[in-house]
Amino acid sequence: MNFDIRFDFQRRERIGLIEAIWGQDKSIDQLKRLSETVLGKNEIVFITRINSEKAIKLLDLYDDAQYNEEAKCLIIGKNLNKLNTNKKVAIISGGSSDLAVTLEAKLALEIYGVNCQSFIDVGVAGLHRLISQLEEIDKYDVLIVCAGMEGALATVLGGLLAQPIISVPVSVGYGVSKNGETALRSMLASCSPGIAVMNIDNGYGAAMAAVRIIKSIS
Amino acid sequence: MNFDIRFDFQRRERIGLIEAIWGQDKSIDQLKRLSETVLGKNEIVFITRINSEKAIKLLDLYDDAQYNEEAKCLIIGKNLNKLNTNKKVAIISGGSSDLAVTLEAKLALEIYGVNCQSFIDVGVAGLHRLISQLEEIDKYDVLIVCAGMEGALATVLGGLLAQPIISVPVSVGYGVSKNGETALRSMLASCSPGIAVMNIDNGYGAAMAAVRIIKSIS
Amino acid sequence: MNFDIRFDFQRRERIGLIEAIWGQDKSIDQLKRLSETVLGKNEIVFITRINSEKAIKLLDLYDDAQYNEEAKCLIIGKNLNKLNTNKKVAIISGGSSDLAVTLEAKLALEIYGVNCQSFIDVGVAGLHRLISQLEEIDKYDVLIVCAGMEGALATVLGGLLAQPIISVPVSVGYGVSKNGETALRSMLASCSPGIAVMNIDNGYGAAMAAVRIIKSIS
Amino acid sequence: MNFDIRFDFQRRERIGLIEAIWGQDKSIDQLKRLSETVLGKNEIVFITRINSEKAIKLLDLYDDAQYNEEAKCLIIGKNLNKLNTNKKVAIISGGSSDLAVTLEAKLALEIYGVNCQSFIDVGVAGLHRLISQLEEIDKYDVLIVCAGMEGALATVLGGLLAQPIISVPVSVGYGVSKNGETALRSMLASCSPGIAVMNIDNGYGAAMAAVRIIKSIS
Amino acid sequence: MNFDIRFDFQRRERIGLIEAIWGQDKSIDQLKRLSETVLGKNEIVFITRINSEKAIKLLDLYDDAQYNEEAKCLIIGKNLNKLNTNKKVAIISGGSSDLAVTLEAKLALEIYGVNCQSFIDVGVAGLHRLISQLEEIDKYDVLIVCAGMEGALATVLGGLLAQPIISVPVSVGYGVSKNGETALRSMLASCSPGIAVMNIDNGYGAAMAAVRIIKSIS
Amino acid sequence: MNFDIRFDFQRRERIGLIEAIWGQDKSIDQLKRLSETVLGKNEIVFITRINSEKAIKLLDLYDDAQYNEEAKCLIIGKNLNKLNTNKKVAIISGGSSDLAVTLEAKLALEIYGVNCQSFIDVGVAGLHRLISQLEEIDKYDVLIVCAGMEGALATVLGGLLAQPIISVPVSVGYGVSKNGETALRSMLASCSPGIAVMNIDNGYGAAMAAVRIIKSIS
Amino acid sequence: MNFDIRFDFQRRERIGLIEAIWGQDKSIDQLKRLSETVLGKNEIVFITRINSEKAIKLLDLYDDAQYNEEAKCLIIGKNLNKLNTNKKVAIISGGSSDLAVTLEAKLALEIYGVNCQSFIDVGVAGLHRLISQLEEIDKYDVLIVCAGMEGALATVLGGLLAQPIISVPVSVGYGVSKNGETALRSMLASCSPGIAVMNIDNGYGAAMAAVRIIKSIS
Amino acid sequence: MNFDIRFDFQRRERIGLIEAIWGQDKSIDQLKRLSETVLGKNEIVFITRINSEKAIKLLDLYDDAQYNEEAKCLIIGKNLNKLNTNKKVAIISGGSSDLAVTLEAKLALEIYGVNCQSFIDVGVAGLHRLISQLEEIDKYDVLIVCAGMEGALATVLGGLLAQPIISVPVSVGYGVSKNGETALRSMLASCSPGIAVMNIDNGYGAAMAAVRIIKSIS
Repeated sequence: MNFDIRFDFQRRERIGLIEAIWGQDKSIDQLKRLSETVLGKNEIVFITRINSEKAIKLLDLYDDAQYNEEAKCLIIGKNLNKLNTNKKVAIISGGSSDLAVTLEAKLALEIYGVNCQSFIDVGVAGLHRLISQLEEIDKYDVLIVCAGMEGALATVLGGLLAQPIISVPVSVGYGVSKNGETALRSMLASCSPGIAVMNIDNGYGAAMAAVRIIKSIS
Repeated sequence: MNFDIRFDFQRRERIGLIEAIWGQDKSIDQLKRLSETVLGKNEIVFITRINSEKAIKLLDLYDDAQYNEEAKCLIIGKNLNKLNTNKKVAIISGGSSDLAVTLEAKLALEIYGVNCQSFIDVGVAGLHRLISQLEEIDKYDVLIVCAGMEGALATVLGGLLAQPIISVPVSVGYGVSKNGETALRSMLASCSPGIAVMNIDNGYGAAMAAVRIIKSIS
Repeated sequence: MNFDIRFDFQRRERIGLIEAIWGQDKSIDQLKRLSETVLGKNEIVFITRINSEKAIKLLDLYDDAQYNEEAKCLIIGKNLNKLNTNKKVAIISGGSSDLAVTLEAKLALEIYGVNCQSFIDVGVAGLHRLISQLEEIDKYDVLIVCAGMEGALATVLGGLLAQPIISVPVSVGYGVSKNGETALRSMLASCSPGIAVMNIDNGYGAAMAAVRIIKSIS
Repeated sequence: MNFDIRFDFQRRERIGLIEAIWGQDKSIDQLKRLSETVLGKNEIVFITRINSEKAIKLLDLYDDAQYNEEAKCLIIGKNLNKLNTNKKVAIISGGSSDLAVTLEAKLALEIYGVNCQSFIDVGVAGLHRLISQLEEIDKYDVLIVCAGMEGALATVLGGLLAQPIISVPVSVGYGVSKNGETALRSMLASCSPGIAVMNIDNGYGAAMAAVRIIKSIS
Repeated sequence: MNFDIRFDFQRRERIGLIEAIWGQDKSIDQLKRLSETVLGKNEIVFITRINSEKAIKLLDLYDDAQYNEEAKCLIIGKNLNKLNTNKKVAIISGGSSDLAVTLEAKLALEIYGVNCQSFIDVGVAGLHRLISQLEEIDKYDVLIVCAGMEGALATVLGGLLAQPIISVPVSVGYGVSKNGETALRSMLASCSPGIAVMNIDNGYGAAMAAVRIIKSIS
Repeated sequence: MNFDIRFDFQRRERIGLIEAIWGQDKSIDQLKRLSETVLGKNEIVFITRINSEKAIKLLDLYDDAQYNEEAKCLIIGKNLNKLNTNKKVAIISGGSSDLAVTLEAKLALEIYGVNCQSFIDVGVAGLHRLISQLEEIDKYDVLIVCAGMEGALATVLGGLLAQPIISVPVSVGYGVSKNGETALRSMLASCSPGIAVMNIDNGYGAAMAAVRIIKSIS
Repeated sequence: MNFDIRFDFQRRERIGLIEAIWGQDKSIDQLKRLSETVLGKNEIVFITRINSEKAIKLLDLYDDAQYNEEAKCLIIGKNLNKLNTNKKVAIISGGSSDLAVTLEAKLALEIYGVNCQSFIDVGVAGLHRLISQLEEIDKYDVLIVCAGMEGALATVLGGLLAQPIISVPVSVGYGVSKNGETALRSMLASCSPGIAVMNIDNGYGAAMAAVRIIKSIS
Repeated sequence: MNFDIRFDFQRRERIGLIEAIWGQDKSIDQLKRLSETVLGKNEIVFITRINSEKAIKLLDLYDDAQYNEEAKCLIIGKNLNKLNTNKKVAIISGGSSDLAVTLEAKLALEIYGVNCQSFIDVGVAGLHRLISQLEEIDKYDVLIVCAGMEGALATVLGGLLAQPIISVPVSVGYGVSKNGETALRSMLASCSPGIAVMNIDNGYGAAMAAVRIIKSIS
């Protein structure tokens, strides 16, 4: 069946992206087996949403494993095929409670060799914090905006800067904002034109959307 | 039953507000009978959400009836007990599609003799429009903010000005913003402190909340 | 960039409010660093939704820290710029299960030097409890109403008293009332005119809305 | 199959109730055929939610047909087996917009020979209206409470009177109360004990619940 | 203020019901204080949704305290004013997972001296189980139906028996039935006439609705 | 590209089903062009949800076009490759309001040459109606159950008969059952084992699920 | 009462299926009693969603008990009346996180003696994985498709293969896919014809739907 | 106030985009006035969601107005500052019912001088249709994917091609897919990495997101 020949590429060969491993629902045994397989292909292991208990067990096994507890991400090995780009991504965030999501995006971008900078705590309740950073943010090529609550940051930025904007609703807060649904719908309904939206808390996905853009630029 | 003596005030006597008549689900007959009763008590008739077809029939009956088609409000008679106040209300709106709601609020405030000014189309997608009006808006004592879509205007204003802010989500838009639910939840989840929220499209209610504040000020 | 000069006010300078720290999703390290920064500016630290485990660690560090376990609020230092007002706030609550939310509002008001009084357990299932307190409640300038379940207390009070009413839905109960959504929608749909609504459990926000009103009065 | 013998009762024989015909989605032909069948069994025809256009066609066919346009109900013939009871039902309603639902309940009760009285427009925004009628309402054996908006009337009544209370949420209003869902959830979450709830706008069902109670009493 | 005289009845005097104490969100201290107050008025203490940890502490304090762990209800003292009735309630349940809710209803009814009988596990997936008990169930005066999943039991019973039916959706299951919302909506939408519905898991409320009916009968 | 060779089958060749045309959102021009294309391939045209206005225009164009107004389906031409099967499908329905959905399923089955029989109005509110037909229904090989309201018919049938059951929620009713969502969730949550569910009103899809089963049988 | 004689079949006699025991909400005592009863009837005990803590206690009691921890299913005894069939079921899954659901389906099918094969991790994000297995999957008679996230696997398979397809949404993921609701609605809205859907995570139900089909085939 | 100088740019100057006029909720008078203003600034008028009745009135007024009825878009004048780019956008759509949304995107892109090509009706129910076009689609720089129903097209494409993908859920269908909410959530939950999502039916927004990307590339 010559089908397989045509289609049996690795994801990297097909779309230039490697598969991240979603650690939350997987047992330590599943994670070990998956890691071995991926490393056996000389690919980097990138596990998201892995708690410290499971991470420690993998850190014991692999010398070059690195765990970022705030991002809940674990990396083993190296990405041998980083992008060759000088394009840069700014990760802008409304509050320090969005930290985990912004870090997940940052780590994912760094794996691909994409230069990125975080601008934390520039929420629009204190507009001057954002305005004072605007010129600096404008130097970046793609903007990732992470915000919980009502997610107004995406709208305000989208009205001020011309770059591609990838917005990530964050599940912080209480009451109507508890699960990120309000930030999600707010970003989708933004009155600023051309704001693209990812799933709630999907920092990794935002990084991949940025990588898609940067690859098409570079 | 000495109960009635204690409780049988008119709403005006009890809380200083007159009852508005919600015109949407009422037949022309019901509206006529209600109007007669209210006018018989020397009170002003204020009918909200009344379409032009029904309004015309009432305009025929009462010489001093006035219909505002954009606000879908009809007024008959005069309010003999206006507030004696020099406090002013600013009605700020994100887009011209919010016009009906802002007008309903404006008419309701004017009935009570409250001076108010509309600032239309200062949505945050073009932040400069709002910023350029900020000093002017700051001269008002109470702010009513009407916005559809993602309702970010309330958050931005709430971070910039110190007045009481009453926000009204507006049911304009399509997709996730179609029925005003996104603007509602966004305003409730606002990261600016002390933003109070009304029901979707409830311009009249916002005016009454402002009247409550102005009466407590004056 | 003369921008910063114009905009780089503290929130207090801009809108007269200090920023509360939302303790729930923050690590003890984040809380320590934030507290130091705030205290370094001679401002009061007010942390909401902080559990006792984290609170104890901060109590060890600061002599003048005070923790209210029922409100889950921690205060460090003093507010040097209290409001100079004789206006008073009544906090009215439907049941003892709403206690945490009413206390959060009370503590937040006291920080600003606003006199306030709680009226607990005057739910409308036993209407006489409310009616017997009505004359007393009427002496206050702004009313904060906290209620879970179906939130009918806001409507009944709104029909009886003329003050500004800020209502806070509370997430107590089970079944359809479990997460406060029913109380929220009920308050928004109130047939009493001019009832303003805050996010679920947002006692702090209600206090800030009251402070906005009191500042505009005083 | 001796099954049929056991089970093939008419609904009247089985549970003492006749089947109402839901007119909304049925064509005039379907309604004609159904009416003939029912009348052929010497039963009364009771069609709910039938618009005037369809009603007129049936009025032409049957001399003893009666159409109540406000209730959107059409009755043909007579119920030959009315209940023999002196128990009475009070139908209490928060506003004149609930009229159609209260009338549907009233007509359904009258078909069974149950004495009932409507108390319209005793909504809790003007509590005195309800209080002043309380002694009169207390003379009735079963209470049906119809209310839209936030449905607080059911809670207040439930705390004041001891009778069985059947509450019907009504789909009037706008924004969060538009489709009756808020009144429904509010009634279900009532803090008054023992309030039973029907589907939105289900005046007929409330009448049948009352008939079940009255039959068990009588 | 002669108001209090008129209204300051106990709930028992007003509507013949005693107040249950909802134990879930209350601290052990709150429960102790409430229990003392209630017992001081010679009333029975009935605490619902109290876990065994809190219950044990109260069992230590009161000799006549009784805890039903499956129902999660604790009773202290005696109800001195039971109903004088020979009316009986059947509590019918679709599956053994509904046990806690049926027991809460049963205990609440027994406090009022109402005779009741449980018919567990007569769910309609095995229709014969229900049919074989039908004659026995028909001997009872009021039916309480508890069911999770799709709640079809209420509809089937409502088509077979003529008694007042109070249905209680139960929050068992997974996926779409997880939180009881499906059973709730299913019962509200029942095609059997006159089925009244309570909040999810509200066994106590169903008992109170039954008590209201029995008091009106007796 | 040898890809196309492998994949470019018609749907009939691939999975033995022809594509139905969904008429609701299509213009008359789109429908004409699609019909011509399909007929040009000697396939039957089956248009669902087409209103009479559009249908008449197509009836004028094609001699062998047939329109079923109650089903809102239009058929042009003949299916030259009917299934060769003696398997039969029973379409069982809770009420006459479900007629359009049952007819859409029936017409779709007949196109494939599948023998089917409708059992209308055997809803479980009058259980005897279903029970009396049970032996007859049991003679069929696959059961399609259409029901609105609370959809209890699927559960009851699923507990009584062993055949494959495909259930279709129907969007009739009002209040909580208005849009078919309650019937959908009720069928998904069924306590009878092995009930499969289709989208709301999807009579055509149910027929196709039945065809899949019959093809695997035959 | 000759009723019981007619209806008091076991479920196996009526519809050929045995009842599974849902272990999640049942106490160890309830599970013991149920197991004894079932085994006393020479039937197999099949407990789903039972955690290891409860399972261990049952494993101690019964020598022939077997616990599958990943599936969270416990089996005691043997099914003496397996199906006599050579029909086979393929269980296809989008990712390794769906494992528990696929295993529950597999165990349930094996109890009935149905041959089945799992095809794990053939999600459509890497389409070649599915395409390369297509010929193999096509050898099976009934397809069970388990998928979380957006559930696109069901649509793609439904367009490629002609078998009966039973799809099971799985509650893995985060944000909008967290509880399986998105996969559920996606499968119901599938543009491939004749895809039948089960409740979220209902692997057991899918197996029973497959058994119904296989019994009607065999 | 030197503020205005800094901020009072046109949107084009700030972010290089012109403002589209949302025609749905605006009166013909509002549209006329807005058009005049925009044309007066030598900008192009682009009105979306304008029905033919309103469009005709504007076509009468402006010689160079063009109305696309299927897209419901009206264009007056010319864009004098088109992008100078050779980058191309592919607009891929699951079915002909998505036509309006794809056309709105296409018209918006053409205004900016972006070359784009539509690939209609390549839905994944017939996977070969998509596969056979894959090489052609791969020649484009940015992909806009429009799909209703379950939106699986975005996932499949995202797994096959490396470009930036902007997906637009479309509100076609019935039952659970009626309002586009299922397609929206499905796209957000996509298991393919880096899929960005717009509001339901927001073809214009997708075009603007593409323009942002192309501007950052060019």
